[in-house]
Amino acid sequence: MSIYNRIAGQRIARIEALSDGVFAIAMTILVFNLKDPLEHRTQSDAELLLSLKNMLPAFLSFFLSFTTLGIFWTGQSTQFHYIKTYDRNLNWITLFFLMAVSVLPFTTDVLSHHINNKVSILLYWLNILLLGILIYIHWLYAERHQHLAKDEQIQAVAHAIKRRVIIAQALYGFGALLCFINTYISITFIIAVQLNYAFGILNPKNRK
Amino acid sequence: MSIYNRIAGQRIARIEALSDGVFAIAMTILVFNLKDPLEHRTQSDAELLLSLKNMLPAFLSFFLSFTTLGIFWTGQSTQFHYIKTYDRNLNWITLFFLMAVSVLPFTTDVLSHHINNKVSILLYWLNILLLGILIYIHWLYAERHQHLAKDEQIQAVAHAIKRRVIIAQALYGFGALLCFINTYISITFIIAVQLNYAFGILNPKNRK
Amino acid sequence: MSIYNRIAGQRIARIEALSDGVFAIAMTILVFNLKDPLEHRTQSDAELLLSLKNMLPAFLSFFLSFTTLGIFWTGQSTQFHYIKTYDRNLNWITLFFLMAVSVLPFTTDVLSHHINNKVSILLYWLNILLLGILIYIHWLYAERHQHLAKDEQIQAVAHAIKRRVIIAQALYGFGALLCFINTYISITFIIAVQLNYAFGILNPKNRK
Amino acid sequence: MSIYNRIAGQRIARIEALSDGVFAIAMTILVFNLKDPLEHRTQSDAELLLSLKNMLPAFLSFFLSFTTLGIFWTGQSTQFHYIKTYDRNLNWITLFFLMAVSVLPFTTDVLSHHINNKVSILLYWLNILLLGILIYIHWLYAERHQHLAKDEQIQAVAHAIKRRVIIAQALYGFGALLCFINTYISITFIIAVQLNYAFGILNPKNRK
Repeated sequence: MSIYNRIAGQRIARIEALSDGVFAIAMTILVFNLKDPLEHRTQSDAELLLSLKNMLPAFLSFFLSFTTLGIFWTGQSTQFHYIKTYDRNLNWITLFFLMAVSVLPFTTDVLSHHINNKVSILLYWLNILLLGILIYIHWLYAERHQHLAKDEQIQAVAHAIKRRVIIAQALYGFGALLCFINTYISITFIIAVQLNYAFGILNPKNRK
Repeated sequence: MSIYNRIAGQRIARIEALSDGVFAIAMTILVFNLKDPLEHRTQSDAELLLSLKNMLPAFLSFFLSFTTLGIFWTGQSTQFHYIKTYDRNLNWITLFFLMAVSVLPFTTDVLSHHINNKVSILLYWLNILLLGILIYIHWLYAERHQHLAKDEQIQAVAHAIKRRVIIAQALYGFGALLCFINTYISITFIIAVQLNYAFGILNPKNRK
Repeated sequence: MSIYNRIAGQRIARIEALSDGVFAIAMTILVFNLKDPLEHRTQSDAELLLSLKNMLPAFLSFFLSFTTLGIFWTGQSTQFHYIKTYDRNLNWITLFFLMAVSVLPFTTDVLSHHINNKVSILLYWLNILLLGILIYIHWLYAERHQHLAKDEQIQAVAHAIKRRVIIAQALYGFGALLCFINTYISITFIIAVQLNYAFGILNPKNRK
Repeated sequence: MSIYNRIAGQRIARIEALSDGVFAIAMTILVFNLKDPLEHRTQSDAELLLSLKNMLPAFLSFFLSFTTLGIFWTGQSTQFHYIKTYDRNLNWITLFFLMAVSVLPFTTDVLSHHINNKVSILLYWLNILLLGILIYIHWLYAERHQHLAKDEQIQAVAHAIKRRVIIAQALYGFGALLCFINTYISITFIIAVQLNYAFGILNPKNRK
């Protein structure tokens, strides 16, 4: 390897800081999909309330995407807890992962405007799939190239991290396929998966 | 609890970094509600001055929301000063708290355009209420699950933190109710509460 | 002082992180004032070049505001180098300082569209004045309430920091007054002051 | 040197935090060039798919600029790994470097709308050239003024860092010149250079 490639991309603290920045911005600019439906026009409280009700698809997409970002942020943060060294390949895997993060506000925007279209659901699912593939490769590469912490439990941790990504992606894939029956069923299923991960409801072992 | 749920969300440094990012962005994008009122059109100084005067509701909303974010940022930062360990439930409470932060530029936008409507004030108040509930649950959960620092004063600190949230929310709720009399009285009252918290004016003990 | 006010706002690391976030976002969203002048329309290279030339006022304002933010960011960072403890009043002085930072993209926007109007220059200058007053109060408060590092040179440092703010604000004030002669002279003078601070050209002592 | 100029700009941790912020935001707001092509209008899946296909130039520019930012972020992070002290001149070199970073979403915007125009390619290349010049000066200044770490390998590292910037800029310059033949050949060549740096494909020494 050339000297430059050997010395580049070793600094975990900065790639974590960059990740927090990209996630924080992606989370916050999702709000741009929420626009005041009536702008400067004066109207009664009843009209304003009605127009807010019509924004339900936009609110749903906002909620969906914020939890998506929350899940992948938590997943990446958990991986970094066990990754002790870094190299330029990990650096670039993370940069492409962040590219998939930064594109989510766009796929969310398309989804919220075309909530009846299969194409918009499959595009959104493609985005989640890309996030899943890249976070999986990130861990696999770190594991295979001895970047993990020397921890007694590291075998069990590595197994749990990989298993979580695969099960989640299987559920997302199934949810996306449901769009061929009905797009609302598809989205409801995906949101239910998200909520399950956020609250850990259906996890039988999630009790002390 | 499954291994993944046990290992996820333990890293306080990153959730704090993410929080600072989301707050910083939410604070800064509030400025997008302030738009050059005349754009490229040439006009006299008097016309420009007049159009700036007409932006008063937008300036008020900007000021109101910036202090709201400042108050909750200070509150969250203060809590983290005493929280020494973290788990996945705290992680998700904070993620939902940040969701309520990131939605504030939207409720501010609605408020600034419909400052005469009760609906927009109640929507804005709902946002503040959500922030209050989530920051309260955050502290309560940390307290009940032994995540706080072992500090002699921790009892008094915990009492002060919870009391602050409840009193503030009571004042905000009263302010929101005032909109049934007049929306301007309601907003003026809420801004007065904010300024009191920012400057500590009415606090009788706020003297050395 | 109440317990809450005593414990709030003590954490320097987080207020610095929040400041870096707000400055970074304000610097980056200045670019939104630069818009592709012709959007999707096809045209010759000559037309595109001409329309880019017409954006000169926007480029000037972008450059002016980026250096303004750079100067105040450097100033604030320098102060924090010598501030060792913090309290809720410093916390709120910084939050209001960040409010003045986050409003700069708006005053820049007005300036770039109305570069011939005295009102837009005075509005921009008011923004700089507010930044100057708040950064000055920040240091003065820290000095008077024993928040500075115990450093042999601290007297000389404190004198240099305060002197820098006052001289800079005097120059900005003089530059703003020039708008009553001609707005372009006014802006050119202010940019020259900025460049002098960035490059240290006119500082006779700026040699080793 | 005056006291203020001597004490200003010494804090590496904050300039790195500011850099991560500016890079993270620039990376994420690139997504604003990707707009839902049909907005609220209902249409068939086929129409939506077609309109997404028409966004190919926008997707290409997004990908191009994200990798550009990734390359320069990695380059800057690598330099900071070896820079141990800082001064006000380095501080301002980095601030101007960040200005060139924050302007990239604008030059990307122009490029994606005028992908057939030589002017837009040369403007984009000018942006990359500016980034290259500033990152080169940053390292050169740090090297000449003894800001580098005392490391046995520092000579080889310094050589590798400077060589990387010069070769990359030579390739970008050649790619930009290709626009006089055909703008698509020019962009394809530049993207190929980017991918080579991201994946290290053509580097003969990139094997263990």
